[in-house]
Amino acid sequence: MAVRKLYGALDSPSTMRALASLFEHDVEFELIPVDFQAGELKKMPSLSPFGELPVFQEGDLTLFESRTIMRYISHEYGKRGEEQVYEIPKLQGIAAAWIDVEDHQFDPPASKLIWELVFKPQKGLPTDEGVVEEEEAKLVKVLDVYEERLSNSVFLGGDKFTSADLTHIPSLYLLMKTPVKRLFEERPRVRAWYRGVMSRPGWEKMVEMVEKVRA
Amino acid sequence: MAVRKLYGALDSPSTMRALASLFEHDVEFELIPVDFQAGELKKMPSLSPFGELPVFQEGDLTLFESRTIMRYISHEYGKRGEEQVYEIPKLQGIAAAWIDVEDHQFDPPASKLIWELVFKPQKGLPTDEGVVEEEEAKLVKVLDVYEERLSNSVFLGGDKFTSADLTHIPSLYLLMKTPVKRLFEERPRVRAWYRGVMSRPGWEKMVEMVEKVRA
Repeated sequence: MAVRKLYGALDSPSTMRALASLFEHDVEFELIPVDFQAGELKKMPSLSPFGELPVFQEGDLTLFESRTIMRYISHEYGKRGEEQVYEIPKLQGIAAAWIDVEDHQFDPPASKLIWELVFKPQKGLPTDEGVVEEEEAKLVKVLDVYEERLSNSVFLGGDKFTSADLTHIPSLYLLMKTPVKRLFEERPRVRAWYRGVMSRPGWEKMVEMVEKVRA
Repeated sequence: MAVRKLYGALDSPSTMRALASLFEHDVEFELIPVDFQAGELKKMPSLSPFGELPVFQEGDLTLFESRTIMRYISHEYGKRGEEQVYEIPKLQGIAAAWIDVEDHQFDPPASKLIWELVFKPQKGLPTDEGVVEEEEAKLVKVLDVYEERLSNSVFLGGDKFTSADLTHIPSLYLLMKTPVKRLFEERPRVRAWYRGVMSRPGWEKMVEMVEKVRA
């Protein structure tokens, strides 16, 4: 039996967040694929009280909520002799602020754009261009703040790569396949930032796992 | 000049979250009242890049996002000789999961109910009873999960009071003044839990500050 299990679905952005985090920190795990559509998770309320993916298990610890899993992995496995952001409250506070920015500002328009431009076409449903225009306008405002923020630090959470950057990986991966990519390309610091995020081991290994299944 | 400043508005639930956290941990600060409606915050983009309240300043550290401020205060000032949840990744992970539950499951219906049943009446606007019914049904599902969760631990994040409980204080304070209170009273473990949260110093001192201004 594997020491660590991740219950998830490879087409779920939340599962991708946990995968990117596990790969970033070289944590070995077994992926247990869950058919979310088939309601498999509803049979396991003790794993995920709100029936959401992913779920991470390690010994007697069970965690749900993808950003929580990401924080835990970074906290538990981030110690490689580097300065550890998690142990310095001020550095941790700044990273935490930008994790919340992704959750509350970036993710709402990004998720709606991914639905319209990635998942609806996959399902043969028509894209609503009005929604795309509206959500792109919201994302532009967020990216303008990011462009300004990145004039003060190399990464969003500070001068080190942290979970504040990693948490964007699923949306970045999916949006770069759509015309929304231009909004990131048009902003020089945002462009340099997302290309830096793309070069992380977490991104590369997550993409490899996700695309192997799709191929 | 005060060492620590909290920019906020005393009728803002997010500001209340930061206040409860500061009071819970006996952290001295100066409250700088900001007239959010008047757009005062827009004049200070360096403080709050998305123009949201509250903002916490301590020396050269500026933090926004109320749950981030709460996490920081607990991380920096939670050391009183007790076992420190922040330093034990597993305990921290479990508390973090329930902070995210509040953010993603509890807060959406709670905020809509507070708008309909507290803020709209204050502004002389009519309550939409259809919205109340719909959001109460969503909150019931969340509280049923809490009732089950509280059969396994004294508090949401474990057997100790943590930020996972504290983060609910603003919504609990505002909802207890409305008929939604009955949904908490009807569930024995939820009732015992919220009464425990109400007895915390963070709750008492936050209520005192908020109600002094309103009186």
